[in-house]
Amino acid sequence: MTFFPPLVIGILGGGQLGRMLALAAAKLGLRVHVLAPETDSPAFEVAGAHTVAAYDDEAALARFAAEVDVVTYEFENVPAAAAAFLDRLKPVRPGIAALDVAQDRLSEKRFLNGLGIVTAPFFAVDTLDDLRAGLAETGLPAILKTRRFGYDGKGQVKIADLADAEAGLAAMAGQPAILEGFVPFSREISVLVGRGLDGAVEVYDVPENVHRDHILRTSSVPAQLMPDTARAAAELGTRVAAALDYVGILAVELFVVEGAAGESLVANEIAPRVHNSGHWTESVCDVSQFEMHVRAIAGLPLGSARRHADVVMENLIGGDVERVVELLRTPSAHVHLYGKRAVRPGRKMGHVNHIRRFPAV
Amino acid sequence: MTFFPPLVIGILGGGQLGRMLALAAAKLGLRVHVLAPETDSPAFEVAGAHTVAAYDDEAALARFAAEVDVVTYEFENVPAAAAAFLDRLKPVRPGIAALDVAQDRLSEKRFLNGLGIVTAPFFAVDTLDDLRAGLAETGLPAILKTRRFGYDGKGQVKIADLADAEAGLAAMAGQPAILEGFVPFSREISVLVGRGLDGAVEVYDVPENVHRDHILRTSSVPAQLMPDTARAAAELGTRVAAALDYVGILAVELFVVEGAAGESLVANEIAPRVHNSGHWTESVCDVSQFEMHVRAIAGLPLGSARRHADVVMENLIGGDVERVVELLRTPSAHVHLYGKRAVRPGRKMGHVNHIRRFPAV
Repeated sequence: MTFFPPLVIGILGGGQLGRMLALAAAKLGLRVHVLAPETDSPAFEVAGAHTVAAYDDEAALARFAAEVDVVTYEFENVPAAAAAFLDRLKPVRPGIAALDVAQDRLSEKRFLNGLGIVTAPFFAVDTLDDLRAGLAETGLPAILKTRRFGYDGKGQVKIADLADAEAGLAAMAGQPAILEGFVPFSREISVLVGRGLDGAVEVYDVPENVHRDHILRTSSVPAQLMPDTARAAAELGTRVAAALDYVGILAVELFVVEGAAGESLVANEIAPRVHNSGHWTESVCDVSQFEMHVRAIAGLPLGSARRHADVVMENLIGGDVERVVELLRTPSAHVHLYGKRAVRPGRKMGHVNHIRRFPAV
Repeated sequence: MTFFPPLVIGILGGGQLGRMLALAAAKLGLRVHVLAPETDSPAFEVAGAHTVAAYDDEAALARFAAEVDVVTYEFENVPAAAAAFLDRLKPVRPGIAALDVAQDRLSEKRFLNGLGIVTAPFFAVDTLDDLRAGLAETGLPAILKTRRFGYDGKGQVKIADLADAEAGLAAMAGQPAILEGFVPFSREISVLVGRGLDGAVEVYDVPENVHRDHILRTSSVPAQLMPDTARAAAELGTRVAAALDYVGILAVELFVVEGAAGESLVANEIAPRVHNSGHWTESVCDVSQFEMHVRAIAGLPLGSARRHADVVMENLIGGDVERVVELLRTPSAHVHLYGKRAVRPGRKMGHVNHIRRFPAV
């Protein structure tokens, strides 16, 4: 790793996660080249170079690869062909294996179960017969999801009644699907693990996440958990990262289930990237998830995930941004906006980290 | 003030201060256009737009002004004509008055004295006779400085002996000069004041600054001061900002002199911009000096200068950057590099905020 002249970090995807990765790279003096198909990508504004191109434009990918030292991505749905193409030219980190697993809900659950990690019961569904057989096992309600390309609740439908089965399958529009049994969880958490090129690991304190309309609204740290549960989450995340020989920040979304024997964890999904539930790290940790991801893929020391205050991260979604001026007046509110040029309902415009306990000096 | 579409902040100067202002603007979702004459300006790498132009290129300044909503600057030696030209087109903040005062050491000291603020004794020097007359008043040693365009010790010479007078004046190369009496200070501090468009004021805790070879090496917070002295510094900075109807971050460098009656303050110079002695604010304050400056010039609430840890900021100068990997391993070291493409002796490459007391949660 050389700092002078600075490495160039290539980022696939130009949304807010790419933007925050670019800002973190800048703080380390590194250069950034963002590739994304949208001409008004928020990350372009803070990157020294950008390419507007489709992810399947191999000529553009080759030019991009020639200009960067390492490639990363802000989203898990990078087309497998694009990732494989780039991987032949420059290191792609976190890596192809993580993308493969995270892109397909069926592979993901099989992979997790293979590590001894509990998931919801699941069944591959291609036909109505598959679906009916699956529902007979899971009971009701259950959730039918496309195996690929789902996010923020898109591509999924709840099946509360056997009579819903046919309509549910139709909603999959012929795509391979997965039926997941209902998990009677008491809360949702996530574990964020940073893993270096050398295998070193840092785990952030576990946030407790609240979703509304399938979109993350708040992440609160610390989560209300038994200490053993927090330790189990950290161990689980570390195991997943090691199994993928992962480099960078990995998030695993988890359900907490309360039973007679106490709390247990059920893994929901893997995000092979920086994650919305880690945005609080920017305000209260020695090294934010964004900086740690950049350090990892650049082959630098991870630094520390140490946290020094309690915090609630709140997403600013759509019209929430009307509160910005009021928030800017509030000392405990650390505001981060993404520079999007227009407000749309449901659009993530920014977030605010509410510092709940900032020890006085 | 409107957030959507985001305001465009124009920055004159593309060094590390411009770069850190651009990064702070990005965190607020604002857009940035940097104008600087150097093609490899570090701030260009993190700005959505940039112009390479001389500060006296009025055609370029006019195009720049047409594309931005407000203009600020990272250095006080913006040519007066350029600032006046831009000020007719778009708001220039902190403003012309502050530039006028800060660009000329003689105006600066007269302005400070006019506010009842003590400075070193000083004498305008154009001739050897002026210099000899001045030295008769100040005694020895004294310091002869060019009135304009000095920084980091450039354009100044110490006069330890009357026999040095002629050579000292020759070193001014015919430029108007100022003789300053020696101040027997015990320490150097600075006060950083944020002032909003509405006149609201926030003052950061006072750092204690150590220079070597006329270049800032460390700023430590809190400074070792009597509480009355810290209060006096804050009051002094607030008075200067109000007198200039200032908008943004203002720094005043101060000497602390210990006398029989306790500590007293002697003002050294005014920096009408974000300041190297405020880089620690990024790690330990609710709002960094960079973000507060951007908020102020954008007409937004200043937020809070509240500090939540003790800290020592260390500049990484020239070969100091060889320590970067070691520093990145140190949890208490928050590293910020400026993305400069080559290391040169005496060049400010980055800084590190050493967190001295990070309260545990």
